[in-house]
Amino acid sequence: MSQSLHNELKREFQLERLILFSDAVFAIAITLLVIEIKVPELHHDVSDKALLKELGHLIPKFIGFIISFIFIGLYWTIHHRMFGYVTNYSGKLLRLNLFFLFFIALLPFSTGFYSEYAGADLYEKGLKVPMTFYVLNFASAGFMIYLMWRHIGNPANKLAEPKIDEGVLKMAKMRALLVPCVFLSMLLVAYLVSVIIAVYLPLLLLPIMRIMRSRMKKKYPNSFPS
Amino acid sequence: MSQSLHNELKREFQLERLILFSDAVFAIAITLLVIEIKVPELHHDVSDKALLKELGHLIPKFIGFIISFIFIGLYWTIHHRMFGYVTNYSGKLLRLNLFFLFFIALLPFSTGFYSEYAGADLYEKGLKVPMTFYVLNFASAGFMIYLMWRHIGNPANKLAEPKIDEGVLKMAKMRALLVPCVFLSMLLVAYLVSVIIAVYLPLLLLPIMRIMRSRMKKKYPNSFPS
Amino acid sequence: MSQSLHNELKREFQLERLILFSDAVFAIAITLLVIEIKVPELHHDVSDKALLKELGHLIPKFIGFIISFIFIGLYWTIHHRMFGYVTNYSGKLLRLNLFFLFFIALLPFSTGFYSEYAGADLYEKGLKVPMTFYVLNFASAGFMIYLMWRHIGNPANKLAEPKIDEGVLKMAKMRALLVPCVFLSMLLVAYLVSVIIAVYLPLLLLPIMRIMRSRMKKKYPNSFPS
Amino acid sequence: MSQSLHNELKREFQLERLILFSDAVFAIAITLLVIEIKVPELHHDVSDKALLKELGHLIPKFIGFIISFIFIGLYWTIHHRMFGYVTNYSGKLLRLNLFFLFFIALLPFSTGFYSEYAGADLYEKGLKVPMTFYVLNFASAGFMIYLMWRHIGNPANKLAEPKIDEGVLKMAKMRALLVPCVFLSMLLVAYLVSVIIAVYLPLLLLPIMRIMRSRMKKKYPNSFPS
Repeated sequence: MSQSLHNELKREFQLERLILFSDAVFAIAITLLVIEIKVPELHHDVSDKALLKELGHLIPKFIGFIISFIFIGLYWTIHHRMFGYVTNYSGKLLRLNLFFLFFIALLPFSTGFYSEYAGADLYEKGLKVPMTFYVLNFASAGFMIYLMWRHIGNPANKLAEPKIDEGVLKMAKMRALLVPCVFLSMLLVAYLVSVIIAVYLPLLLLPIMRIMRSRMKKKYPNSFPS
Repeated sequence: MSQSLHNELKREFQLERLILFSDAVFAIAITLLVIEIKVPELHHDVSDKALLKELGHLIPKFIGFIISFIFIGLYWTIHHRMFGYVTNYSGKLLRLNLFFLFFIALLPFSTGFYSEYAGADLYEKGLKVPMTFYVLNFASAGFMIYLMWRHIGNPANKLAEPKIDEGVLKMAKMRALLVPCVFLSMLLVAYLVSVIIAVYLPLLLLPIMRIMRSRMKKKYPNSFPS
Repeated sequence: MSQSLHNELKREFQLERLILFSDAVFAIAITLLVIEIKVPELHHDVSDKALLKELGHLIPKFIGFIISFIFIGLYWTIHHRMFGYVTNYSGKLLRLNLFFLFFIALLPFSTGFYSEYAGADLYEKGLKVPMTFYVLNFASAGFMIYLMWRHIGNPANKLAEPKIDEGVLKMAKMRALLVPCVFLSMLLVAYLVSVIIAVYLPLLLLPIMRIMRSRMKKKYPNSFPS
Repeated sequence: MSQSLHNELKREFQLERLILFSDAVFAIAITLLVIEIKVPELHHDVSDKALLKELGHLIPKFIGFIISFIFIGLYWTIHHRMFGYVTNYSGKLLRLNLFFLFFIALLPFSTGFYSEYAGADLYEKGLKVPMTFYVLNFASAGFMIYLMWRHIGNPANKLAEPKIDEGVLKMAKMRALLVPCVFLSMLLVAYLVSVIIAVYLPLLLLPIMRIMRSRMKKKYPNSFPS
């Protein structure tokens, strides 16, 4: 192999390493979510009915697991699409990505904390602290994605060649900001209106993103990677 | 490197990333299975006899671990073979794969739950809830594989080029449906006949798949990747 | 890219996937080892002296962690060297490798079990059950490596091209058998002579392997990959 | 593909495997850090105020998590840069890297131990044992990096081609030694002056490294990979 091809392959591998390392953190975080759901342990009067009741108590945890799984999956999909444009890396990109991974690694704790008190406690007493922690964690991760888009999209940094289409980039940044905004609006609703309504706000996120995506596809049919 | 080769390599890397991310989830799920088996802790009268007895109590957990390991391994092998055909990806494939990984990530919990009550409780009291949970989890994962085969096998989606051989695809889909069907038949037997017989049904799966495989090999000797 | 180059790259990626999946299981097992060592929790009379004493109680666990780390590292190195020869894969290789990974995934449990009772209990009461479990686990993993060498080394299977040098292969198989043999000899010594002597037998393994390796290097100076 | 290109690709993949295995250990260690932070479980008098108080008790754990995350991230970045030069591997590099990973895998325990007693216990009683353990762990990992730089930088080992620039190598070695030195100076200050001051010393590390880096960039503007 020629030296220049060799260097190019090496640089690409360095970038791939950054990406695969991120994937490993994603994969571990997504699998550890379930560790917070403990197998119900009955020692007396074990029966199908008693176990069903125990599973019933776990429902808020399962819902928490599912919602966090969906949103970590969404973040992974966005990360996957974003790095589909990246052809080089910088020290700053490494650091931004590490901060992003910090918030991903924290998600199993936040999910466990939120879903521990998302049952009767939340509905009867209007508990806000666990939701606040959870929302801030997801919003911070989303905001790091926005910062990465900005860094990658800046042609001066030479991280994405050929240059990302202006419209695609603008849309990507808006979408990246949308996720933390919807999460933060959960807090607004929780503190000003009602915690119980706030719980269901993230469900709005998926249809909104779908609408944005289809509109974007119509506008830029060719520049769409996935 | 030319731009078009570069783009092709980038697209292939994006696909590889999807696959390696799945592998990481598989690897973590398969290793976390064993975390549910707690080291026996005796504080008084520690002796070889007492420890053997403690290990004896863990036998249902070990069997649960082994069976789940075999079936996760089987799913991994199928996933490995399936993506051996895939040459492109789509947003839908990403989502189907994420749903599949959701059920894989849930398996350590299901296995822990099933094997916690697979000893005396199951045999004496005919407990059905843990088995139901376990079966639904494995069957759902298997069904997602079927949906992925359908999506990948559809030539309109341009995900597998050259086109997958019709016969191979048909067989693959049948096999993919077979796994959830055998698991669901466990439930039929458990609720209509006897839980104790149902426990042993998954053992039928491996010889059936082996027969299907050898028949398939005879029919399509060339189009067989592994 | 030409279709044949494309197919070759795809086949290589399928092999790489098998290898990277194994690495992930290795990495998780090696990192989970430490999870069995619980942080000492003192609630009263916290002092440096009390904590040192608590750390002292953890010494058998640390030794267990270090020994298992070294041997998992050794297995990884052997796996790394072995797959350095492999250029193709087969269904049987996938299955053998999965069985091997099964025993790797079980090692955190075995290590935890062995080191839990490797302190006063082992020395005063001559406990043999935890050591037996631990030894059988490591020996089984080593034996699977031997089976993989046999499968890969058989030219009829066309898994390693160019063909592995006869002498290198013979040496590799002998080494692969040596590891389980030394481990099993631990059991012989433990049951026939003394558990306390048996504990130290694995320490013999590293110098023996080093001697074999240097002798091998002298004999086949060119055919040595790492 | 020609045989020689094939061999070269194979050798590169073997090196990549070593690197990706390391990344998996890094990723797991970084994600397991958070496992030591247990979700607060209140069973009576659940209220926002009570939960905030519980979160308050967790602050030392969060700080420990953040600091360890930053330093593991730093080690990963250094490992990433170091292996950016490496084009071949040796048995010794494998072993040095395994020892390095040993200390990385131990970090979740050390972090958990340090942060468990980093609250009132450290400030009121001047506890030194947990900090000593933590510091020795981080310093050992840093020292292994120094040994790897020495091994890789030695042209006789033919691990990095083209040869690493003398100045870059010298700077890299100095930086690699700086990290364990700052950590060890924590111990000096803790034992001779005050534990409470020692806690804040690692904060000095990041600005020092930044200064060294910018000076290095000025001196060797071309030979800078990331």
